[in-house]
Amino acid sequence: MSSASDPVENLRTLIRCPSVTPAEGGALGALEAMLKPLGFETERPVFREDGTPDIENLHARLGSKGPHLAFAGHTDVVPTGDESAWSHPPFAAEISDGMMYGRGAVDMKGGIACFVAAVARHVQKYGPPKGSISFLITGDEEGPAINGTKKLLKWAADRGETWDGCVLGEPTNPETIGDMIKIGRRGSISGRVTVSGVQGHVAYPHLADNPLRGIVQVAEALLDPPLDDGTDQFQPTNLEITTIDTGNPATNVIPASATLAFNIRFNDRWTADSLKAEIEARVARGAAATRLRPGKSAALKAEVEWPTPVSPVFLTRDETLISTVAGAVEAVTGRMPALSTSGGTSDARFIKDYCPVVEFGLVGRTMHMIDECVAVEDLETLTAIYERVIADWFAGRP
Amino acid sequence: MSSASDPVENLRTLIRCPSVTPAEGGALGALEAMLKPLGFETERPVFREDGTPDIENLHARLGSKGPHLAFAGHTDVVPTGDESAWSHPPFAAEISDGMMYGRGAVDMKGGIACFVAAVARHVQKYGPPKGSISFLITGDEEGPAINGTKKLLKWAADRGETWDGCVLGEPTNPETIGDMIKIGRRGSISGRVTVSGVQGHVAYPHLADNPLRGIVQVAEALLDPPLDDGTDQFQPTNLEITTIDTGNPATNVIPASATLAFNIRFNDRWTADSLKAEIEARVARGAAATRLRPGKSAALKAEVEWPTPVSPVFLTRDETLISTVAGAVEAVTGRMPALSTSGGTSDARFIKDYCPVVEFGLVGRTMHMIDECVAVEDLETLTAIYERVIADWFAGRP
Ligand SMILES: [Zn+2]
Ligand SMILES: [Zn+2]
Repeated sequence: MSSASDPVENLRTLIRCPSVTPAEGGALGALEAMLKPLGFETERPVFREDGTPDIENLHARLGSKGPHLAFAGHTDVVPTGDESAWSHPPFAAEISDGMMYGRGAVDMKGGIACFVAAVARHVQKYGPPKGSISFLITGDEEGPAINGTKKLLKWAADRGETWDGCVLGEPTNPETIGDMIKIGRRGSISGRVTVSGVQGHVAYPHLADNPLRGIVQVAEALLDPPLDDGTDQFQPTNLEITTIDTGNPATNVIPASATLAFNIRFNDRWTADSLKAEIEARVARGAAATRLRPGKSAALKAEVEWPTPVSPVFLTRDETLISTVAGAVEAVTGRMPALSTSGGTSDARFIKDYCPVVEFGLVGRTMHMIDECVAVEDLETLTAIYERVIADWFAGRP
Repeated sequence: MSSASDPVENLRTLIRCPSVTPAEGGALGALEAMLKPLGFETERPVFREDGTPDIENLHARLGSKGPHLAFAGHTDVVPTGDESAWSHPPFAAEISDGMMYGRGAVDMKGGIACFVAAVARHVQKYGPPKGSISFLITGDEEGPAINGTKKLLKWAADRGETWDGCVLGEPTNPETIGDMIKIGRRGSISGRVTVSGVQGHVAYPHLADNPLRGIVQVAEALLDPPLDDGTDQFQPTNLEITTIDTGNPATNVIPASATLAFNIRFNDRWTADSLKAEIEARVARGAAATRLRPGKSAALKAEVEWPTPVSPVFLTRDETLISTVAGAVEAVTGRMPALSTSGGTSDARFIKDYCPVVEFGLVGRTMHMIDECVAVEDLETLTAIYERVIADWFAGRP
């Protein structure tokens, strides 16, 4: 096999770079060293923003004409946690009982290692692709994701880059490789409710208006009834209250106000605007229910804020891209993967604005955990799947 | 009039002593100087406890035999708040439009000033009382109340002091002097509930168990239905949730646990034990309601703690003391006062363990506020009431 065509070797190299966000840790350099011998032209743009660390990114392109297939991912990893709790050191890439251990093994240095090996094998067998293949790799996915994929896409687009399809190599399989590819995501929106009442002494509640009675009613109205029961393509919309805080240390004082924050993962039955209107109506209903209780004054106020940007729902509509990836999974594993829109956000939310994107990678079971690990056999399987994706995607293009 | 027989003069002297808890500020010294010429024997015990400031107190007794009437109160005052917001300086005792302004004017240097004047007038008219009169005055009522009346009573009892009745001079009248005397108080108990679930990511709620769903159900169970609807002598038992806290700053994380604290003011339908059992049953019911909701795991736990001592309910049963004070109010004001058990705790909760106690004082409307003030006319009225209490109480005793 030529250089970089062994995913196990590629992954060992990447794991040994301690690239905990925001550190580059040598990982992008190592990746660049794998890609250049294959003919890729590489650049390492650094993005900056006040209040966040400078972040290194990697852009690599093989070929100059279309069609253009991109592979996206990140070399940064989450912290190790208690290193002494690992059964194998987190940056050693030791193999034991067929498993390679290390931070980033599945999320997602493993996915990168396999795609590099797949490209190497494709080039070895068929020569350069009939179009172009690019790597869009960031060092800021596990962090605030401000100086990462979003800026890398814009930077490349500003230079005239366009893509016809993208595979994002995040670990998408819950249990076994071949379980699931992801073709969209629910939207995400976070909000905060502040309920204000009238401070007072617990012995004189008629002179006060306890905002916590309001918080409880608002919480009830937010949670019940469920927002919907799902759609053909998406799970039900789900609201989780993430925190309720008052900060009143005095056991004899009714507090003046309290806050509640929530996050909603929403499906294609909603737009950001229709969802905000529904939530504001529920908060008003909860506040009104509180005011109707006997003995309470009418001073209670509940205000909703939307302090963070909405991440909209999306669904990949490119049937050719989806069937190419799903078909490759089936051809290699013998199993038809689920086409899922479940789970948390990923950089696909940025990529979808530039080209169709599908996510497929390793088994995510140990991601972010102590003893993150990948089956060596899975690395070979995923490389075979990616190699087939490359061949079939270009074959299906004019 | 003899020395100390003018309540306005007495109060002016006391207000000019800046005795914000824990400072003595000269107030106990000034009081001692009023009482000694009337024949009182005085002592100034200082009580200490680790972690609290040393506190001065005053014990003064006139006479050596029974029956023994005590007057209890405090010379310490709450802070002034923004002094520039006062229309008259808080330690100047200025009179304007018939009102004397100053911190402590009604809570409760005014009550002390009137009782001193009443004793002075009684001695002037009739000579020493046929039994004894004592002052039990602390400098730690508005603070933690650890080195105050509770220790002063024990200190005196250890020296052989016994009392047959006590008037506590706190401001008991909501609007007009003569409105209300207080003959008992609801009990007070504080508790804390910790609800634990399973931390997780908002996008994967089925892998987590949100403790805030539990907190909401527990809060509902605590608040509804009401604990009772009151008794002949007492207001309804009332529970206020004083704080709910989570401290989760991450908008995409379901927290592991949350806490809720509450205070209950309870009447004579409950004992501390029966009330704790009721609350623990309600918390269990709230937790069970949460576990029954679809999609939630059974991991949720709710635990109740009772970290602070219970203040028990009490009712003064000495009809003679009550009718003496109520009769004096009616004789002077022409109005029969309400016999109330409402409102917050006071040092009566300590005194009741030694002798029957009734509270009566000035109008509390401005207590603890900017521009605390007392009608000069009320000082004369209260002095007349106290003078009548002294005369009638001793007259009714063998
Ligand atoms: Zn990842
Ligand atoms: Zn007071």
